[in-house]
Amino acid sequence: MRHSFYEGCSPLGKWDTARVIEIDDPADPRLDDFRDLSTADRRPDRPGGRGLVIAEGVVVVERLLRSPYPVRGLLGVRRRVEALGDLPAPAYVTSAEVMAEVVGFHLNRGVLAAADRTPQPDVAELVASARRLAVLEGVGDHENLGSLFRNAAALGIDGVLLGPGCSDPLYRRSVRVSMGHVLRVPFASMPNLTEGFDLLRRNGFTVAALTPRAGSQNLADAGLRGRKVAVLLGSEGPGLTEEAIAAADLAVRIPMAEGVDSLNVATAAAIAFYAIA
Amino acid sequence: MRHSFYEGCSPLGKWDTARVIEIDDPADPRLDDFRDLSTADRRPDRPGGRGLVIAEGVVVVERLLRSPYPVRGLLGVRRRVEALGDLPAPAYVTSAEVMAEVVGFHLNRGVLAAADRTPQPDVAELVASARRLAVLEGVGDHENLGSLFRNAAALGIDGVLLGPGCSDPLYRRSVRVSMGHVLRVPFASMPNLTEGFDLLRRNGFTVAALTPRAGSQNLADAGLRGRKVAVLLGSEGPGLTEEAIAAADLAVRIPMAEGVDSLNVATAAAIAFYAIA
Repeated sequence: MRHSFYEGCSPLGKWDTARVIEIDDPADPRLDDFRDLSTADRRPDRPGGRGLVIAEGVVVVERLLRSPYPVRGLLGVRRRVEALGDLPAPAYVTSAEVMAEVVGFHLNRGVLAAADRTPQPDVAELVASARRLAVLEGVGDHENLGSLFRNAAALGIDGVLLGPGCSDPLYRRSVRVSMGHVLRVPFASMPNLTEGFDLLRRNGFTVAALTPRAGSQNLADAGLRGRKVAVLLGSEGPGLTEEAIAAADLAVRIPMAEGVDSLNVATAAAIAFYAIA
Repeated sequence: MRHSFYEGCSPLGKWDTARVIEIDDPADPRLDDFRDLSTADRRPDRPGGRGLVIAEGVVVVERLLRSPYPVRGLLGVRRRVEALGDLPAPAYVTSAEVMAEVVGFHLNRGVLAAADRTPQPDVAELVASARRLAVLEGVGDHENLGSLFRNAAALGIDGVLLGPGCSDPLYRRSVRVSMGHVLRVPFASMPNLTEGFDLLRRNGFTVAALTPRAGSQNLADAGLRGRKVAVLLGSEGPGLTEEAIAAADLAVRIPMAEGVDSLNVATAAAIAFYAIA
């Protein structure tokens, strides 16, 4: 059972079937949620950003339909929309050409859905209900962030805490790379890591910084399995800051072959998530 | 110590410094190795394929220079070429614009190197000298293949055996995604898995098929750590064939959260490589 953020979501098939609406005119204002997608998915606080959650392709759209994010509408070619079953919102059906003109580029997945953001859970609430967490510092690459959420979802991580320098997990590219799994893992901002680690410790967590630096314990020997653990992960290039490592309870490393500097951050995270499961 | 394929490679800095040659004419035949790169890196048996090994960017080019692949030449802007130190082959220095015209697209890494392929090690030789191997079936995606080799290099896998349906690990995109680590992990073709598994067993290996199917043992409980293990991995979508799973010695799985179908194949491989280390 996951975090309460997800309770009360309607399973697919229980929603009312909405009308499927044919649209031929790319300028139709009902398609505005899907217009100029390469800027529309920016965070609401960025220029031109509307902060919508955009899902692309049948698999990811289905995950959005099962998520807590309120769906505003869908846009697709008939065959892809029909693959979705019951629909919680208007589904605009059009040609691939009109879709491309609306979104601003060619899209080969054939169906999109747009949803509103919801308030993210409070950090304290998320920490209180979790047993295994990831804490990220400076993970700015949207693809790495998406992959990391996919791995978190698969490997039973209850939530992700976003420290300084992290990107927006609901950016379209992250949603796509996560295969939509970013939509099922609760996350919350934790702008001050030191305060955040105190909160984690008060809730019985051990904060384990994953870093290849000398002096780190071997991940397998650190006795983390079965404990309440928050895995602290940094970005692929620079890694964690000294301050973050110092503030953690311990530093752990994945044993690596000589001459190989690092793993991709999402891959390293997956190994750590597996090791603490 | 890695496989003997790598013995005798000169370390960087021991090579003779070759002349750096300025070239302004994109039609200069000395640049032919870098011409129309989007087809030139195809396998020699494919139309237009010359089968060259192409490295892009300072980090990957440096790994090519340290690999057993004989470097034919380099092409780059002066600043990037100068970052490389001693050079084993002619380095053609030009502008970013001429580079783009030669290779056929804009390249933002600023330096390339081209090398010849070498004969791959014999399967029997590779198996005889290894303790941990990956065996791939149907891994056709070049990015997944590159990531998998990167993870294999980092996590101490001694070699990769390519079963039916696998792509060419030396394709340019695989080399790039692997961060050049594909150039240090020996690989060999194993077109017949059943015969290959017999060879592995004769050499004391246990063949462990990684699959989420019901009835698989938990990876952590399968007693693989410290043994001679060949991890059998299938492609991300369809997974391993029934025949391959049946021919393996056992089937193991990574415990996964309900509702998440799979991990990326390179990520799943990384977890398995970690678990058998």
